[in-house]
Amino acid sequence: MPRIAVEIEYVGKGFHGSQYQLGQRTVQSELESCFSILNRDKVRVILSGRTDSGVHASGMVGHLDWSRDTEPDIGKLVRAANGILKRDIAIKRAKVVPITFHSRFSAISRQYVYRILNGRERCPLLKDTHYHVVHALDSKAMSDGASELLGEHDFASFRSTNADKTSTVCNVTRAEILNLGEGQLEFYIAADHFVYNMVRIIVGTLVEIGLGKRAPESVRLALQTSDRNLAGPTAPPWGLTLQSVVYPDSVF
Amino acid sequence: MPRIAVEIEYVGKGFHGSQYQLGQRTVQSELESCFSILNRDKVRVILSGRTDSGVHASGMVGHLDWSRDTEPDIGKLVRAANGILKRDIAIKRAKVVPITFHSRFSAISRQYVYRILNGRERCPLLKDTHYHVVHALDSKAMSDGASELLGEHDFASFRSTNADKTSTVCNVTRAEILNLGEGQLEFYIAADHFVYNMVRIIVGTLVEIGLGKRAPESVRLALQTSDRNLAGPTAPPWGLTLQSVVYPDSVF
Repeated sequence: MPRIAVEIEYVGKGFHGSQYQLGQRTVQSELESCFSILNRDKVRVILSGRTDSGVHASGMVGHLDWSRDTEPDIGKLVRAANGILKRDIAIKRAKVVPITFHSRFSAISRQYVYRILNGRERCPLLKDTHYHVVHALDSKAMSDGASELLGEHDFASFRSTNADKTSTVCNVTRAEILNLGEGQLEFYIAADHFVYNMVRIIVGTLVEIGLGKRAPESVRLALQTSDRNLAGPTAPPWGLTLQSVVYPDSVF
Repeated sequence: MPRIAVEIEYVGKGFHGSQYQLGQRTVQSELESCFSILNRDKVRVILSGRTDSGVHASGMVGHLDWSRDTEPDIGKLVRAANGILKRDIAIKRAKVVPITFHSRFSAISRQYVYRILNGRERCPLLKDTHYHVVHALDSKAMSDGASELLGEHDFASFRSTNADKTSTVCNVTRAEILNLGEGQLEFYIAADHFVYNMVRIIVGTLVEIGLGKRAPESVRLALQTSDRNLAGPTAPPWGLTLQSVVYPDSVF
C-alpha cells in the first residue's frame, strides 16, 4: 500500500475551502473523488492544513494511500488526475513517499503570500487575487509592524474566535512586505504552523498600520495580551495564497 | 462640448470583444451605457482599436464627447463610472482633451503582451491569463523568430482571412520574448498599428518555432510572401493583453 504525496494548485473562488464538508465542493472532496476513480477504490486524501473558502494555493501538499498492490506510474497518475480534475484545480507534482510521511504532521513550515492593490481605482485584472485598499498605505510602517511578528509568539489574538483548540504559539521565520510598485504590495509570511485566520487577521492589522490608524508597535501589544480585540479586522480571502509546505526531507 | 479621453482596464472573459454588437455584452456597449447614465444623454465611446472576445486590456484608450455645457469633475466622473461598471471593467484614468484628439486616429503606437505557460502540468492560477503549452519551448529560437518582425513589413500573412481592408503594412518597434523562469514566457510587441488577429497569429507562429516545428527564419519568408498559410495557427485569446496606446502628446 504505497503512500503518495501530491502538490496541489487551486483557485479559491470555486471551493468552500479545502476541508471536506458534506454537500459542498471542497478541495479535499474533489481530490478524493478524482483519486478514488484512479485507484478504483475509495481514497482518503489528507491535506497539510486548511485553507478558507476563497483562499488560493499554489503549493498545497496532501498524501493518500494507494490501495492497489503495485506502485502506480507517477507521471501517468498525475496526467490522469489532471484530466479528471476541473480547470480550477490541478496536481503539480506527486511522489511515492515512506509510509511514515504525513502531509500535516511531518510539515515543519508553511509559507503564504498576501497580495494588496493600493490605489484609488479598481484593477479588474487583479480583482480575484488582490485586496483593493483605496487610501494610501505607508508600506514602511507596515514593514515595521510585520517585523514585530518574527520569532516565537502566542498568536491567540490573531485567531478567529470560533477556532479550534490547537496551540496558538507559532514560530514566524519570515514576515516581509515587498513593494512591487504601481500600488502592488506583497506580504510574505512563513511559520512552523498557523492558527485559524491568522494571516488574514495579521494583514488586516498591517493595513490599519499602513493607513495610520494604529502604530507598528501595536502588533507587539496584541501579541503580548492575547486579546483578539487588539488585532485588526480579517482581510478578505482572495488576496491570500498558500505557496509552499516544507518537510525535513525535500519531498518532491 | 468637452471631449474626454479614458483609459480602461478589463478582463476579456465576460465580453464579446470590445466593439459594439447588437445584443451582446461588449466593452463599448458597457462604457456607452455607463457614460450615458452619467451624462444624462446618449454617449458614443470610440475606442483606439478592437480587441477580440476573450482578450484583456490594462490600458485600452477611448474618447467620448460630454454633451452638457460644463466640463465634468474628472475625479468624480471616474469614481461614479467605476461605481456603475461591473467588477470586470474599470476606468483607470480620464482627462479632458482637445476636440482634435481621436483615440484611434491620433494613436501612434500600441503595445501588447502575450503570456505563455510552458510546462507539463496545468497551472489553475494562470488558466485565464496564460496559454498553456505542454511540450518544451526553445525560448532562444522564439526570440530569434521575434526579431525578424522588427521594422516595417507587410503583415498580410499574419491576418485572419475574414479581416477588413485596412493597410497591412505595420512598423514593429518592439518584439521581445522574456523568459521569467518557472515556465513563464512573455512576448511583448509594439507597433504603429496591428491587423486583425496579428498578435495571436504571430504567437502561434513563435510557438511552432519554439517547438522546433519551423525555423526562426521562416518568419521572414511568411512576411515576404503575404501568404496566410505560411504563418502559424492563431493562439488563444486569453493569453493576450493590450497594455498601452501611445499618443504624440502624453494624454494622461
